[in-house]
Amino acid sequence: MDYRIEKDTMGEVRVPADKYWGAQTQRSVENFRIGPAGSMPNEIIEAFAYLKKAAAMTNCELGVLAEEKRDAIAGVCDEILEGKLTDQFPLVIWQTGSGTQSNMNVNEVVANRAHVRLGNRLGEGERLLNPNDDVNKSQSSNDTFPTAMHIAGYRMLVEKTIPGIRTLRDALQQKSEEMKEVVKIGRTHWMDATPLTLGQEFSGYVSQLDHGLRALENTLPHLAELALGGTAVGTGLNTPKGYAQKVAETIASLTGLPFVTAENKFEALAAHDAVVESHGALKQLAVSLMKIANDIRMLASGPRSGIGEIMLPPNEPGSSIMPGKVNPTQVEAITMVCAQVMGNDVAVSVGGSNGHFELNVFKPVMIANLLQSAGLLGDACVSFTTKCVNGIEPNHPRVQEHLENSLMLVTALNPHIGYYKAAEIAKKAHAEGTTLREAAVELGYLTSEQFDEWVVPARMTGSLD
Amino acid sequence: MDYRIEKDTMGEVRVPADKYWGAQTQRSVENFRIGPAGSMPNEIIEAFAYLKKAAAMTNCELGVLAEEKRDAIAGVCDEILEGKLTDQFPLVIWQTGSGTQSNMNVNEVVANRAHVRLGNRLGEGERLLNPNDDVNKSQSSNDTFPTAMHIAGYRMLVEKTIPGIRTLRDALQQKSEEMKEVVKIGRTHWMDATPLTLGQEFSGYVSQLDHGLRALENTLPHLAELALGGTAVGTGLNTPKGYAQKVAETIASLTGLPFVTAENKFEALAAHDAVVESHGALKQLAVSLMKIANDIRMLASGPRSGIGEIMLPPNEPGSSIMPGKVNPTQVEAITMVCAQVMGNDVAVSVGGSNGHFELNVFKPVMIANLLQSAGLLGDACVSFTTKCVNGIEPNHPRVQEHLENSLMLVTALNPHIGYYKAAEIAKKAHAEGTTLREAAVELGYLTSEQFDEWVVPARMTGSLD
Amino acid sequence: MDYRIEKDTMGEVRVPADKYWGAQTQRSVENFRIGPAGSMPNEIIEAFAYLKKAAAMTNCELGVLAEEKRDAIAGVCDEILEGKLTDQFPLVIWQTGSGTQSNMNVNEVVANRAHVRLGNRLGEGERLLNPNDDVNKSQSSNDTFPTAMHIAGYRMLVEKTIPGIRTLRDALQQKSEEMKEVVKIGRTHWMDATPLTLGQEFSGYVSQLDHGLRALENTLPHLAELALGGTAVGTGLNTPKGYAQKVAETIASLTGLPFVTAENKFEALAAHDAVVESHGALKQLAVSLMKIANDIRMLASGPRSGIGEIMLPPNEPGSSIMPGKVNPTQVEAITMVCAQVMGNDVAVSVGGSNGHFELNVFKPVMIANLLQSAGLLGDACVSFTTKCVNGIEPNHPRVQEHLENSLMLVTALNPHIGYYKAAEIAKKAHAEGTTLREAAVELGYLTSEQFDEWVVPARMTGSLD
Amino acid sequence: MDYRIEKDTMGEVRVPADKYWGAQTQRSVENFRIGPAGSMPNEIIEAFAYLKKAAAMTNCELGVLAEEKRDAIAGVCDEILEGKLTDQFPLVIWQTGSGTQSNMNVNEVVANRAHVRLGNRLGEGERLLNPNDDVNKSQSSNDTFPTAMHIAGYRMLVEKTIPGIRTLRDALQQKSEEMKEVVKIGRTHWMDATPLTLGQEFSGYVSQLDHGLRALENTLPHLAELALGGTAVGTGLNTPKGYAQKVAETIASLTGLPFVTAENKFEALAAHDAVVESHGALKQLAVSLMKIANDIRMLASGPRSGIGEIMLPPNEPGSSIMPGKVNPTQVEAITMVCAQVMGNDVAVSVGGSNGHFELNVFKPVMIANLLQSAGLLGDACVSFTTKCVNGIEPNHPRVQEHLENSLMLVTALNPHIGYYKAAEIAKKAHAEGTTLREAAVELGYLTSEQFDEWVVPARMTGSLD
Repeated sequence: MDYRIEKDTMGEVRVPADKYWGAQTQRSVENFRIGPAGSMPNEIIEAFAYLKKAAAMTNCELGVLAEEKRDAIAGVCDEILEGKLTDQFPLVIWQTGSGTQSNMNVNEVVANRAHVRLGNRLGEGERLLNPNDDVNKSQSSNDTFPTAMHIAGYRMLVEKTIPGIRTLRDALQQKSEEMKEVVKIGRTHWMDATPLTLGQEFSGYVSQLDHGLRALENTLPHLAELALGGTAVGTGLNTPKGYAQKVAETIASLTGLPFVTAENKFEALAAHDAVVESHGALKQLAVSLMKIANDIRMLASGPRSGIGEIMLPPNEPGSSIMPGKVNPTQVEAITMVCAQVMGNDVAVSVGGSNGHFELNVFKPVMIANLLQSAGLLGDACVSFTTKCVNGIEPNHPRVQEHLENSLMLVTALNPHIGYYKAAEIAKKAHAEGTTLREAAVELGYLTSEQFDEWVVPARMTGSLD
Repeated sequence: MDYRIEKDTMGEVRVPADKYWGAQTQRSVENFRIGPAGSMPNEIIEAFAYLKKAAAMTNCELGVLAEEKRDAIAGVCDEILEGKLTDQFPLVIWQTGSGTQSNMNVNEVVANRAHVRLGNRLGEGERLLNPNDDVNKSQSSNDTFPTAMHIAGYRMLVEKTIPGIRTLRDALQQKSEEMKEVVKIGRTHWMDATPLTLGQEFSGYVSQLDHGLRALENTLPHLAELALGGTAVGTGLNTPKGYAQKVAETIASLTGLPFVTAENKFEALAAHDAVVESHGALKQLAVSLMKIANDIRMLASGPRSGIGEIMLPPNEPGSSIMPGKVNPTQVEAITMVCAQVMGNDVAVSVGGSNGHFELNVFKPVMIANLLQSAGLLGDACVSFTTKCVNGIEPNHPRVQEHLENSLMLVTALNPHIGYYKAAEIAKKAHAEGTTLREAAVELGYLTSEQFDEWVVPARMTGSLD
Repeated sequence: MDYRIEKDTMGEVRVPADKYWGAQTQRSVENFRIGPAGSMPNEIIEAFAYLKKAAAMTNCELGVLAEEKRDAIAGVCDEILEGKLTDQFPLVIWQTGSGTQSNMNVNEVVANRAHVRLGNRLGEGERLLNPNDDVNKSQSSNDTFPTAMHIAGYRMLVEKTIPGIRTLRDALQQKSEEMKEVVKIGRTHWMDATPLTLGQEFSGYVSQLDHGLRALENTLPHLAELALGGTAVGTGLNTPKGYAQKVAETIASLTGLPFVTAENKFEALAAHDAVVESHGALKQLAVSLMKIANDIRMLASGPRSGIGEIMLPPNEPGSSIMPGKVNPTQVEAITMVCAQVMGNDVAVSVGGSNGHFELNVFKPVMIANLLQSAGLLGDACVSFTTKCVNGIEPNHPRVQEHLENSLMLVTALNPHIGYYKAAEIAKKAHAEGTTLREAAVELGYLTSEQFDEWVVPARMTGSLD
Repeated sequence: MDYRIEKDTMGEVRVPADKYWGAQTQRSVENFRIGPAGSMPNEIIEAFAYLKKAAAMTNCELGVLAEEKRDAIAGVCDEILEGKLTDQFPLVIWQTGSGTQSNMNVNEVVANRAHVRLGNRLGEGERLLNPNDDVNKSQSSNDTFPTAMHIAGYRMLVEKTIPGIRTLRDALQQKSEEMKEVVKIGRTHWMDATPLTLGQEFSGYVSQLDHGLRALENTLPHLAELALGGTAVGTGLNTPKGYAQKVAETIASLTGLPFVTAENKFEALAAHDAVVESHGALKQLAVSLMKIANDIRMLASGPRSGIGEIMLPPNEPGSSIMPGKVNPTQVEAITMVCAQVMGNDVAVSVGGSNGHFELNVFKPVMIANLLQSAGLLGDACVSFTTKCVNGIEPNHPRVQEHLENSLMLVTALNPHIGYYKAAEIAKKAHAEGTTLREAAVELGYLTSEQFDEWVVPARMTGSLD
């Protein structure tokens, strides 16, 4: 491989000749061979492009950066956002906990790429942009990296997670409507209980997701607060007056998202409770989805010796040894995602709790987990919806069979004969394998006609009201 | 011990003669010898008292319960709320996951205690109230227990947790004000950094708690939704028309808290995402408090060989072997609480994710963890405030010594001489053990007068602006 | 209440006149009002009694404590172990993270109680024993509390947890034997699969617990290492020569358990990886038990509209509204315990990871969680065994019905006609609602006789081999 | 893109013309667009290559597979192991929870690649190998995937994790030796305490890792048990006699690792407690490493206003705004890894606890987390060792300054004048800012000569003994 020499305040470093990055990026490549290369999420790089551009625009507007420099910076940032420089960001999550070298990676790429865009050769001649003094002007890794965290996290949540969950929520709502008259046996403690409709059962899932979405949206204002302008320790050292507010407005304008400058910059650098908060909502959604998907898995079990009250679309052969087997594979994918999200929540909390003084240095691991959880949940909800939920159909004969056999229809008799006599009927029917009607009449507590009048499953669901 | 015979639908059971509980409670006592006796939180019993009274009032108002019965029920509920019957609830958390026997424990105690209050002897004569048909009228364990969970959780949060956190928040705010002019060295990566004031440092803690309180308050509307009226599976079987809404209003009125009937009763029985949600906010607060308390512990370290920039009030001898030692014990107590809350969050999530069909049967473990976390956080914040934070004082000489030595004051030179020359100055001073001024002048990058003009720690904090 | 005055190095404190504890205990009572009073587990107090007695014996043997003092100390320790002084230990978990005041609580109670046992009045006259110089001789809280942690944890594990799990393991083994010829349908992905026997299914549970027990026993050697002899920071300052080893031998002898002195005292004070390790094994067992109990819950579901292949003993009426309902309540109790243990594991890990320098100050929360998890698992296994597993019976008609209907018996044809033709048969039978035999013959892939010869469920389980 | 048509039991599928995979792989590609493509760890693919080869060899030896087919299968497996087919495995973690399509991916690639190796064109002519009947002979996804999990996990642990941790352990041991005479102040509760040597301090870290390695090695026997031979539900249906044991021996021989056939195949498919167990040990190591790395971070803090008792090698400029700053970046990387591992442990536990009946369907997420944690810990330990620990040096002047100032040297006086008088001395010195000697003499408790004789820091560490 060909190399060129780059320098930083510690000395010279050999850098691959065809890469735009500089000495500090290269040091990080060599110092942190932990896990697969390039694991720093691309969403973070994109977020940096927005913020470097916004900082340059703001610095220029406030009179501390020349227009020429502003334009040079913005031009490269646009290239990053267009996906043209994806091979220029080789760093890993497991680097310094402030993400300093990822900030410098962007600074260096912008400076060197601008140099080339201005008609020069990489590594030759004087550059227009200095990575620290120009591209990083009015910034510190300590405020840029958390800003990039919030931009990346916010975008992922509103662009992928929330729409994905809404897609699933709407599909479940649609199914709830479709099946609102399918009266079926209820189950509590995994035991037969009083009836409800399939529509009602699914409405509970919709309500869970509605609450989960609300919980997630509640976290967005905290995530919308940007650290930028705090610089090294939160005091805003080396920033021009009005910078923090203006740069947040510029980022809001560039992204079309309601970012604001953080209420308190000391918090914004030293703690990432906003990430903890948003991930907590994702964890809640994972908990909900685990329940919902489990129900669907179990309702669809069989085809002959399970519950079998609904049918899922078959998507692939389910077994390499059992011919003809079909499995609830989408359920499995999404519940695995839920397990991951529940685990990631602990990683985020551990990282969040370990900040010291003016800086939390678990930034990369925290945002990597938020982005993974948010992305996986969004994708999984869409996959689950399109490949599974949309194709759910009730299995009417099975639903009917279960309903008719149910001993818990006896509950409808409580208001007429009291709990204790009703219990006697149910126990007799259970012990003797008879119907409730037979047991009830035999015990002399009511007539067959009364049974018909009082025990009406559909009415027990409230769906005849 | 003396016994009397009580019956339920399964037959006869011997119950301690002097206890009001009946057959089902006794069965649970005998069937679940897991952990210490009586571990079901008292807050749940109190919540049941509110809801049984409210149900009786509503049933009466809707014409399905006689006034005499209503009054009998309400009378015992009041006794429970007055703390007169605390020895009547012997059950444990580790019982059925629906809390059915705790519901029946209340039903039985109300029925039997009312019998005695009406002048009868326990176990003799016909009771006015039947535990299932009267005390439990229009109810099921499946909707009462989750209702009790929400009542108990909500009360704990607004009566203990939030006030406790506010107490701490206000004390930190007060300290932030008091110390707003104490300029000190900042620390990032645990390494010396640019200065800020102690007041600024503490303002970050305040901001964390402000955000945490907002996050916690965001969860209250979900927790305010009550399952009552859903009965067995959410359909409201065996409830009079209008019951669900009215009983929630009655509970709101009795407790003075903004309870409403749940949007969707199927969710309210089958999932406890509201508990997951509120506990998630408590976990976020635990994460914040761990950071804050750790900082305070480390800032106060010493007395001679630590950081020592603040002093904590001495509360007790700190060592059984090292004479004269004083330790940050309040910090230790609250950080231990934080560790517990972070663990409890997983217990709650695991429980929340494991509901099946129409019922989640991890109810007791979920609410026990919420109540423990909420209670401990509330108590710990008050203890931490009164025994520690209120007594925090800056250690001025130490603060000054650290500030003066700091090499990172060099950052103030960036706008004047650029990052690279500034770095050269810092490195030279570090290597030679000199002051920044000496190194700067020796390198010829600036004069001593310029150094004085440009490097003003207080101005670097923005506190002179 | 009557008080007497006690003193420590910080001054005078009012202590309840009838309590043996002294100034430091009282300070802790007043300084740490967090959660219920007296929450420090009694097992820790007992462990302290063993170690204080052992320390006194060793100190005497090594010539640094008079026999008279040794006997006075040992006498009170014996009283503690006999349960005579349980109201003398009012402290909470949420105190100093070193447990210093709990160590002092024991020191003070021993000194004062000995004074009374020697015929004196509390608070009057010169005491034979000084809490720090005699009872705590050759000790520090920093080595006694972790020693008490290991003693208490080890005892709980070997006296309650392991026997409890063995009880359950043996009952499952017994059931596996009893049901070894009950051929039933298998289920993978919650879908019908090839057959196995109920005995085989249960043998998997036995194997899980066997592995879990081995994993738990693997952790005991680490837990058997005692910190005692390290004193303040691990160097053994102020201990006589040979003390550490001898005192561990004495504790081993008093408890009958294989305690040894820790390989490295610096680790033993500064980290509690042994607790993390043992709790990790408990968490593994919780994971196993969650799976086992869930299976049993689902196998027993019904009675008419579930899986229903086994029957559980009815222990109590299952519903306050649905008459005659019986639920798998023991399953619910043990799975709630599992959720708690999974959460506690995180609390222990967070505590374990947060030690600093020579001392981990999350000691009380770590051991409280270990003891809770260990105790609950032990109790729950016994309860689950005696009230549920022992009474499990196969539901033969249901088992047979499911088996006969199974389409996955087709797998037996793979070696004869290949996977693809076998799949065709299964799909045809599924689509047309016929038997496999009918579909197979109709497709012309085999004769009815061949079907009988090749498809023999019992042989498919290997149980005819 | 060019396509060819492939078939499975569900019909035709278009597959990229140049890929060896078939219909089932393609279905999975299209059905599971969750997260980045190809996320199924390569270690799993390699493990499959070992097991497919071993199965072919064993099938042949037992007379159920022709030699020609065995050789064809083995040939492709060798190519996979040589890394020649890495672009043939496009599936993701978030697929079916049994990993069925990853098993089929390997089956299909082997069948098609063998076809080409035998001189044919992809998609044309009759293949020698059928993916299900030949490559998958005597196998099911249900036993192959867990076998691949154990092979992949075991290899990672013994090839990367354990050597990585040993590297760090040995480096810490080396440092402990080097610094065994550097007497320094101890710190408990983050407060000054009695002295120890830097070597002793580091010996605690060594002991933690020694115990952690032992704990990890204790888990290997469980992980060495292979499910292969259980086929669909654990009964070994469609396997020749002796197959399970022999195939495990063959895998052991091919990998050089001590694999054995699982004691109980029902457990081996339905539960992955072995993964839970091994990951639990990784989590313990993460807890240990968090403590160790935190200590090193804090010991090295400064350079002027921290603890500063050791110096770390500078690896890169630490700040984009603060010139000359150097940070403990390797500490930050490894502690972020620890946070991830602590989170992953929960993901593994949640997955492990959710198995149902004969199959756990959280297989991919469980093994992905084990492999990630094991890989990251191994890498991070090596990076931490080579870039940080090896370069640690004591900062003698600072160590000495702290030691001399320490008030806790007073503890050496306890045996001579008692705890209470010693406390008086320490408090006086603290209050008046004097030395202990001055305070002691002034109080008249001892002479200056006695002070010199009794208070010898090095002797207090036991290092003069």
